[in-house]
Amino acid sequence: MRQHVPIRLGMVGGGAGAMIGNVHRIAARLDNRFRLLAGALSSTAEKAAASAAEAGIARSYDDFHEMARAEAARPDGIEAVAICTPNHLHFPVARAFLAQGIHVICDKPMTATLEQGRELAELARGSDALFVLTHNYSAYPQIRQARAMIARGDLGRLRLVQVEYAQDWLTEESRSKQAEWRGDPARAGAGGAIGDIGTHAFQLARFVTGMRPERIAADLSSFVPGRRLDDNAHVLMRYANGAKGMLWVSQVAPGTENGLKLRVYGDKAGLEWAHETPETLWFTRFGQPAQKLRRAGPGTASGLDRLSRVPPGHPEGYLEGFGNLYAEAAEAIRARQAGRPLPGHLALPGIEDGLEGLCFIDACLRSHARDAAFVEVMP
Amino acid sequence: MRQHVPIRLGMVGGGAGAMIGNVHRIAARLDNRFRLLAGALSSTAEKAAASAAEAGIARSYDDFHEMARAEAARPDGIEAVAICTPNHLHFPVARAFLAQGIHVICDKPMTATLEQGRELAELARGSDALFVLTHNYSAYPQIRQARAMIARGDLGRLRLVQVEYAQDWLTEESRSKQAEWRGDPARAGAGGAIGDIGTHAFQLARFVTGMRPERIAADLSSFVPGRRLDDNAHVLMRYANGAKGMLWVSQVAPGTENGLKLRVYGDKAGLEWAHETPETLWFTRFGQPAQKLRRAGPGTASGLDRLSRVPPGHPEGYLEGFGNLYAEAAEAIRARQAGRPLPGHLALPGIEDGLEGLCFIDACLRSHARDAAFVEVMP
Amino acid sequence: MRQHVPIRLGMVGGGAGAMIGNVHRIAARLDNRFRLLAGALSSTAEKAAASAAEAGIARSYDDFHEMARAEAARPDGIEAVAICTPNHLHFPVARAFLAQGIHVICDKPMTATLEQGRELAELARGSDALFVLTHNYSAYPQIRQARAMIARGDLGRLRLVQVEYAQDWLTEESRSKQAEWRGDPARAGAGGAIGDIGTHAFQLARFVTGMRPERIAADLSSFVPGRRLDDNAHVLMRYANGAKGMLWVSQVAPGTENGLKLRVYGDKAGLEWAHETPETLWFTRFGQPAQKLRRAGPGTASGLDRLSRVPPGHPEGYLEGFGNLYAEAAEAIRARQAGRPLPGHLALPGIEDGLEGLCFIDACLRSHARDAAFVEVMP
Amino acid sequence: MRQHVPIRLGMVGGGAGAMIGNVHRIAARLDNRFRLLAGALSSTAEKAAASAAEAGIARSYDDFHEMARAEAARPDGIEAVAICTPNHLHFPVARAFLAQGIHVICDKPMTATLEQGRELAELARGSDALFVLTHNYSAYPQIRQARAMIARGDLGRLRLVQVEYAQDWLTEESRSKQAEWRGDPARAGAGGAIGDIGTHAFQLARFVTGMRPERIAADLSSFVPGRRLDDNAHVLMRYANGAKGMLWVSQVAPGTENGLKLRVYGDKAGLEWAHETPETLWFTRFGQPAQKLRRAGPGTASGLDRLSRVPPGHPEGYLEGFGNLYAEAAEAIRARQAGRPLPGHLALPGIEDGLEGLCFIDACLRSHARDAAFVEVMP
Repeated sequence: MRQHVPIRLGMVGGGAGAMIGNVHRIAARLDNRFRLLAGALSSTAEKAAASAAEAGIARSYDDFHEMARAEAARPDGIEAVAICTPNHLHFPVARAFLAQGIHVICDKPMTATLEQGRELAELARGSDALFVLTHNYSAYPQIRQARAMIARGDLGRLRLVQVEYAQDWLTEESRSKQAEWRGDPARAGAGGAIGDIGTHAFQLARFVTGMRPERIAADLSSFVPGRRLDDNAHVLMRYANGAKGMLWVSQVAPGTENGLKLRVYGDKAGLEWAHETPETLWFTRFGQPAQKLRRAGPGTASGLDRLSRVPPGHPEGYLEGFGNLYAEAAEAIRARQAGRPLPGHLALPGIEDGLEGLCFIDACLRSHARDAAFVEVMP
Repeated sequence: MRQHVPIRLGMVGGGAGAMIGNVHRIAARLDNRFRLLAGALSSTAEKAAASAAEAGIARSYDDFHEMARAEAARPDGIEAVAICTPNHLHFPVARAFLAQGIHVICDKPMTATLEQGRELAELARGSDALFVLTHNYSAYPQIRQARAMIARGDLGRLRLVQVEYAQDWLTEESRSKQAEWRGDPARAGAGGAIGDIGTHAFQLARFVTGMRPERIAADLSSFVPGRRLDDNAHVLMRYANGAKGMLWVSQVAPGTENGLKLRVYGDKAGLEWAHETPETLWFTRFGQPAQKLRRAGPGTASGLDRLSRVPPGHPEGYLEGFGNLYAEAAEAIRARQAGRPLPGHLALPGIEDGLEGLCFIDACLRSHARDAAFVEVMP
Repeated sequence: MRQHVPIRLGMVGGGAGAMIGNVHRIAARLDNRFRLLAGALSSTAEKAAASAAEAGIARSYDDFHEMARAEAARPDGIEAVAICTPNHLHFPVARAFLAQGIHVICDKPMTATLEQGRELAELARGSDALFVLTHNYSAYPQIRQARAMIARGDLGRLRLVQVEYAQDWLTEESRSKQAEWRGDPARAGAGGAIGDIGTHAFQLARFVTGMRPERIAADLSSFVPGRRLDDNAHVLMRYANGAKGMLWVSQVAPGTENGLKLRVYGDKAGLEWAHETPETLWFTRFGQPAQKLRRAGPGTASGLDRLSRVPPGHPEGYLEGFGNLYAEAAEAIRARQAGRPLPGHLALPGIEDGLEGLCFIDACLRSHARDAAFVEVMP
Repeated sequence: MRQHVPIRLGMVGGGAGAMIGNVHRIAARLDNRFRLLAGALSSTAEKAAASAAEAGIARSYDDFHEMARAEAARPDGIEAVAICTPNHLHFPVARAFLAQGIHVICDKPMTATLEQGRELAELARGSDALFVLTHNYSAYPQIRQARAMIARGDLGRLRLVQVEYAQDWLTEESRSKQAEWRGDPARAGAGGAIGDIGTHAFQLARFVTGMRPERIAADLSSFVPGRRLDDNAHVLMRYANGAKGMLWVSQVAPGTENGLKLRVYGDKAGLEWAHETPETLWFTRFGQPAQKLRRAGPGTASGLDRLSRVPPGHPEGYLEGFGNLYAEAAEAIRARQAGRPLPGHLALPGIEDGLEGLCFIDACLRSHARDAAFVEVMP
């Protein structure tokens, strides 16, 4: 009889009012693979305690350093920690927990600077603890389906990668908590939209196609007066095999919501996926009718059923996609704890994806400084 | 500081292989309002124990009678039970737990027969325990939005109610566990598609419009050879105020998935909602452009934000809708335990909805027996 | 060298302000198969002359009787006439031209009464002239595609036919010219919505499936105070082979425009078509991904290319569909004039379709008078 | 009484097998504003005569020079000529007819080279005859609606212009007549996809926004081995007011058909339009629900009804949009012939649009030669 034992989880950041903290908590809870037991949810002791109480977290800490030490010292201490802070804290928090051998599940972008990213990569490579980066969109079943189809050659030789991610919530100046730190280079890093959502778009295209652009050209804008970081980016991409692409991210496009969209075309077929209808993947072989491939429906690649909870027609969405990442993280953690290799079906974003995302941000800035000339992504 | 304490939950039915049991477990867990501690998940002791272990349930029972007694006797016994069995067990299980003062969250249709439904209604009226019927579709935010708009008169006087619910999974004879009991009158009751999904469609139209049809005419079919219950129903509806409607349910419509759709038209405006895109409600005032009303987006009626977890553009779906029902059940249970009246913003389906659903099934059968003549819904 | 010679066409009705007259003129002109040379476009001489001048029609008549006689007497007289009058004139006008051996292209419903329809059928059967009824929706390429697929067995044995046609333009009382005669039993006949758009919906389902319902049950309504004819109808259908169906027509559904929609399900596959996107036909084999079949695209049945003018992705619509009917009428007329049998690829609605439509109206009224009991369609 | 007299039209190019010739003929015929009387439809006399006969054209010429002279000499000669040849003939044909004072309706791109374009511009400026360039997409009613809304400030200050035009018909090497000349620099000019569809996309964005990009950066590709001209282009755009944009054109994107799409975002609102559903314009004011603006529906800007033939819900498409251009050309010609100024409501593309399109092609090539550096569009 297989006895279910959830992984003991902690959380840093994600206090009251932070959208993404609650998302992580739900995602961790969704499949019952984690139990959230400890947290340093806010930078002030009082708010941290209140947020922990509200979230039903037993052990609240005022400080993440203390939390890392104390939890590592407990026999029933947390096995993994979720990092949901503003970007500039990703590095010190991850470092503190990795140093204690505690697995890390961290929000993107990986760190606020490329230098931090490289340092973190060194640390992570030297640690037995896992580092998972929550590029959650890559855990949608139909994104995995797209990846499987490309990997097995359904599209033939790839030629075009069109990716975009458009939002409108920063169309006007905003004083919300979310907007505030994202607009502050000291906390967000040097990327605005390119860091916040550009890294998602970049990673999604990379993940699905298996290809990383060699060179990109980026034209960044800050449309809202007074804004210090980019709120829109137009990017051209060139791949080693001759494929080309475009990437557009914006947070000032009224009428869009969370409009992540990916289209990939090869010499045999094309694929289209949009986050607005995440359970549908459009697939068209050249010269044949378009097919509507549905999550868990006919045509689903083998092994993907484990990423579905309900049959097609019962919409799963953002939280379930995020939950898939947590479910794979749980599998990976249990394998690592047991000394087993990570199961081959896992496709968890990690340190390398994080570094690539930081290089993407860096390349955008370098290109922008040169009037959008093409630059190397990984210099 | 508000301390979060989940409600102690038990479950009857929903063992391994049952889709809906897992749905209830996720829905209960989603917002951390419940903790599942006890269960009688299967009719055989061994399977029950295995299922409980896999689901991480601490106390497994072989028998629901025993479970009701034992849990009621424990100081830390369950406060509520979720019933996920085939239809014929809804009645005895609900009766057993209500008798112990344990709140009941029960799948639909409420019971296998109208007689059982009436007896259960009597029991429930005499109990302090709550009875919640999981007509989950009525807990979608945009369904609540539709209901609020109709209630405040946005559509004017209602004229037309078009509701449909089409699936294709029973297009051919099926030997799946799910199909098997649903096709057996002894376990499903006298309704096939009309009981399984017709009651959902009926309740949804009823819930949104606030109107119950007085008379209906039903033409039932069993298209698949050997099938003993209906797999398709065409129903006409007439309301007291002169409004009319149509209801179509089918489980033999290839290419449909879980196609619940509701359209309501008044003398001032019309509304359309489809489960395929549950976060969008179309609203058109006569003579004005159609508006796309999005979950948690502009135009959302006051008080509905509590049914959303993430901003518009981050798709929520079936499990979140189901979770809304559990969240409201938690609120209701806590209010009842505290001796407070149920909060006015709750809109939980219960005994009356269950009775109406059984009357709907009964009326369909009566009409069908008379060559689809109009009959009273509540005789 | 094939020399193109257009057919000489006349028109009765369709004067200034009449939408459908202009539609017929465009449809006739679209493929250059007709030249409009004569007309009795209005009931008053002055308006008739002004409308004819505006439409560039050389010969204007005050009276259709005179027109029929005069044109038949001319060596260069019209070969065919389009009838675009209110319903009550279809019969006398068609009779007048058929009597002169002039081919008739007539709007639907065929006549204002079933009795007239039967008399016209007698006349038409005794004439060498053709009678074409403009059930234009049946000439959309993807409707023809659907028909071809069903005929060759792609859907297997048919079980379900769901058809609807919803508009909103009569949601409130209207004094427009179009609304006025349609609301007057003396000019429209005994059917309101069932005559105006119900006959289209009925014919479309009939045309695509090849099946005519044996019995129907109809619940008619006149929602707008003072309205003398139905503005909404809910109809159940039963076919000889056990198939069932629903038909809904409404002219009081705010937010709908010209919402004709057809869905057909068999034991092997299903088809869906909606007028809002007339160039797409959805086809799903049970257990396979849905296919998006596009006008003139991959998968198009042989022989249908002649109904397309431009490649897929260059939208054709209502006027082109109507034009297809005129193009087939031209083919038929030229064949008849040459003494050849009508080409087998033509699928022109005619007298029999007109009679069936009138029987449908009649059956709806008979059923309605019996509290929506099932009645025979062709008594 | 207003007497309708069609304009006498001639055509050069557009013989049998040429898609666009038939499109021009239908568009000219649609609203009965033109009568096609003369043509030089093919480069060989025999084919020209056969094509003319088939199209019902009375006077067929072997040579366009002869046609220009002969028609100008006839009292009943053509008043206007439609040019539907491959690109390299646009210039000599237009020159020949303009020289005779015959109005020209010419396909795009205006000429095969920028030099020819400048020479033609000189000629046209010195002629009383009109020059109309068939950028047909700019004549869709909802494109005009978008333009009107932007002009009146509904979007506020414009920030972003995203335009794309994707096809798949050149995914593989093609030997079709259409593909052949388009792939030959001697006949198509120096632009492949950028000339054939890029000029459409460029003009559409220009037309709707009223803004012309100052600088662009273009990355061109020829994906199919052996192809001599570009089949894909990724372009960045920068406007004088700080607005930015992207333009993507492709003829190698499997699953796309004729996917022209335009999105414009300002600081107050956004607009989206896609050719797949040309009658819908999406409009969202920041912070309000999206509105679905339909051709001829509620919210239509004043004066646009003249571009519609049938009510909303009766789909009009590509041919009707093309027909709108012809209808406006007819109005312009009649005004010019009468010595009246061109009506203010006309929005006909002409010489300046043609020059801008050629400059766009030229700028793409200049940028591409400099590794996609930004270059001036109008040097």
